[in-house]
Amino acid sequence: MFDMNLIQRGARLRRSPFFEATQRHGAKAYTVYNHMLFPICFDDLEAEYHHLLEHVTLWDVSVERQVEITGPDAFAFINMLTPRDLSKCAVGQGKYVVITADDGGIINDPVLLRLGANHFWLALADSDVLLWARGVALNSGLRVNITEPDVSPVQIQGPKAKEVVLALFGEPVTKLRYYWFLDTKLDGIPVVVTRTGWTGEVGYEVYLRDGSRGNDLWERIMDAGAPYHIRPTGPSDIRRIEAGILNWGADMTLENNVYEVGLERLVDEKKDASYIGRDALARIRKEGVRRKLAGIEIEGERIEFNTTKWPVAAGGKPVGRVTSAAWSPRLKKNIGYAMVPVAQAKPGTALQITLPGGAERKATVVDMPFVDPKKAIPKT
Amino acid sequence: MFDMNLIQRGARLRRSPFFEATQRHGAKAYTVYNHMLFPICFDDLEAEYHHLLEHVTLWDVSVERQVEITGPDAFAFINMLTPRDLSKCAVGQGKYVVITADDGGIINDPVLLRLGANHFWLALADSDVLLWARGVALNSGLRVNITEPDVSPVQIQGPKAKEVVLALFGEPVTKLRYYWFLDTKLDGIPVVVTRTGWTGEVGYEVYLRDGSRGNDLWERIMDAGAPYHIRPTGPSDIRRIEAGILNWGADMTLENNVYEVGLERLVDEKKDASYIGRDALARIRKEGVRRKLAGIEIEGERIEFNTTKWPVAAGGKPVGRVTSAAWSPRLKKNIGYAMVPVAQAKPGTALQITLPGGAERKATVVDMPFVDPKKAIPKT
Repeated sequence: MFDMNLIQRGARLRRSPFFEATQRHGAKAYTVYNHMLFPICFDDLEAEYHHLLEHVTLWDVSVERQVEITGPDAFAFINMLTPRDLSKCAVGQGKYVVITADDGGIINDPVLLRLGANHFWLALADSDVLLWARGVALNSGLRVNITEPDVSPVQIQGPKAKEVVLALFGEPVTKLRYYWFLDTKLDGIPVVVTRTGWTGEVGYEVYLRDGSRGNDLWERIMDAGAPYHIRPTGPSDIRRIEAGILNWGADMTLENNVYEVGLERLVDEKKDASYIGRDALARIRKEGVRRKLAGIEIEGERIEFNTTKWPVAAGGKPVGRVTSAAWSPRLKKNIGYAMVPVAQAKPGTALQITLPGGAERKATVVDMPFVDPKKAIPKT
Repeated sequence: MFDMNLIQRGARLRRSPFFEATQRHGAKAYTVYNHMLFPICFDDLEAEYHHLLEHVTLWDVSVERQVEITGPDAFAFINMLTPRDLSKCAVGQGKYVVITADDGGIINDPVLLRLGANHFWLALADSDVLLWARGVALNSGLRVNITEPDVSPVQIQGPKAKEVVLALFGEPVTKLRYYWFLDTKLDGIPVVVTRTGWTGEVGYEVYLRDGSRGNDLWERIMDAGAPYHIRPTGPSDIRRIEAGILNWGADMTLENNVYEVGLERLVDEKKDASYIGRDALARIRKEGVRRKLAGIEIEGERIEFNTTKWPVAAGGKPVGRVTSAAWSPRLKKNIGYAMVPVAQAKPGTALQITLPGGAERKATVVDMPFVDPKKAIPKT
């Protein structure tokens, strides 16, 4: 059994409603994300990757904490937090969005769900958007309530995910378009089911709306998935890198803007409302960026998935850092991302990477995603 | 060697400037705090406690990330973030403060340092005050710059701490009053030295102002401390509970206010300026609170330091949760805190605690701090 004392000391770190289930099912390691314990593997990372590609996997992603925004001005408020034009987001629909600071920096990249005309959830990456939103609201003159609701998602990801959600929720859920959702119940457990995920595979998320029912929901999904060999796993970094999906905190932070990290599709330039960061983004768009996140292939033998911002050089001169990297078993290549000056971000550029311990590796800038986009699910 | 993969996957979690030093000196476990790895022990927790009581200890608390506030309106802005009257804080002085939300909730409980008339640092507990402050600033009309500077503290704590800082910094530092600081250099390394700490013992913090010099500063302190048997340790939860010191995220959160957790001394009722949460705190003060954080003694054998909000009952009825608890070797008692209704917060009240696994323990509400206040350093 994993020694929880290694990271858990006292009652500061929160536990997910699925924590006991993940312990029972043999979680081998946890990290910390949004002040909460996050199970990151139950087996070897490559074994989990293959299971995701061939079958179906269940992830405890309760750490995607929600910020809930309600009140008569909720729409106006949330539309002010992001460059996407949310007048195009229907009730029942979700969007992948960035939350931007006044300088255009990326505060977070949540999935937004519109549950009502003035009712929104943000499923967050690892930063306290609750504090940002409450700070912004203070002098905004808008009537909003901003809280962290009792909502905890799991992901069901892999080619058999559709069969599993069909068995659980019936036909309507299989008709969901990307980023749309259903508000429903499972044996009396209130849930929201979305067609979303962090893989590029077929996938769904089930947002539990009653934290006391974590064990029930987990076992119900495991039972429904048994004929399809469902297994609890951590999120697959290998698969998400293959798909060109970014990890906030590693591949992008508050120090970056969407134009540096290839997320310009999340800015609706013709949006008919002001939002935080609009002027800064317009200026950056006009002036251009100095650095970019580039896809890279790293030569040589299999690297361990554990980058610590390895140094990147070009022509012997330090130019940037690796932000994520992994060995892709099906591509039989080391792939990843590096933040480098624009001049070094062009496909074909030769780079040199320094691994921990000092070993040098040749690398080349390549186009993303690494796996045929027809196989990847676009974030819409 | 500790398997870093247990919590560190990819480049998301940040590393302290002292990370390599803590690895070299045998850190056995890390937790995550402000998105950064935090070494929490190098030895048995009781061995570290005894070393703190008898000698001197060095802690890597870089996770106390700073928010720096500058600009022509920096004083007006920071004075708006806290109920303490900062007109009473001189340049060169620090204060223990709470940052309050508009509903009076505690966002964080940093140590504030005033480096100039309009130059402040907040040394933070585990929440993104950078986002809160930037959100608040947006429509405030105040001209401020709010950033995370390259500043990383260590703590030097224990009865021999004064000898160590004397050897390092000379006479002036030994003349510091509680919560005052010196802006100085050590072998060219820029630092700020404060008379502060998280122990109730004599203690100092050294704020490194150049992250590239982490190794140098660490070894310089270890060398100066060698005659006094200095050892790297984690923060001692046993000692801080004895002193009645609270841990944000465990003993208090955004859901609590100062009146619930005994921090009313951090509200200057006659403060001559408005601040966020003022109206809410005035209302709470008038109406009274429904629950309070109470000191408790738990009967029976030594408990493990690892509370997970153990349930608390009174007369067989559930009334609250334990927020922190530890075995005090010198008191030979289990001590801690529980959040309970006001009626159950009176000294002498009998409580029942349910430990993990279901075992019941008798407990009694007692006065805090647990160790004679003459031995404890007041937070001023």
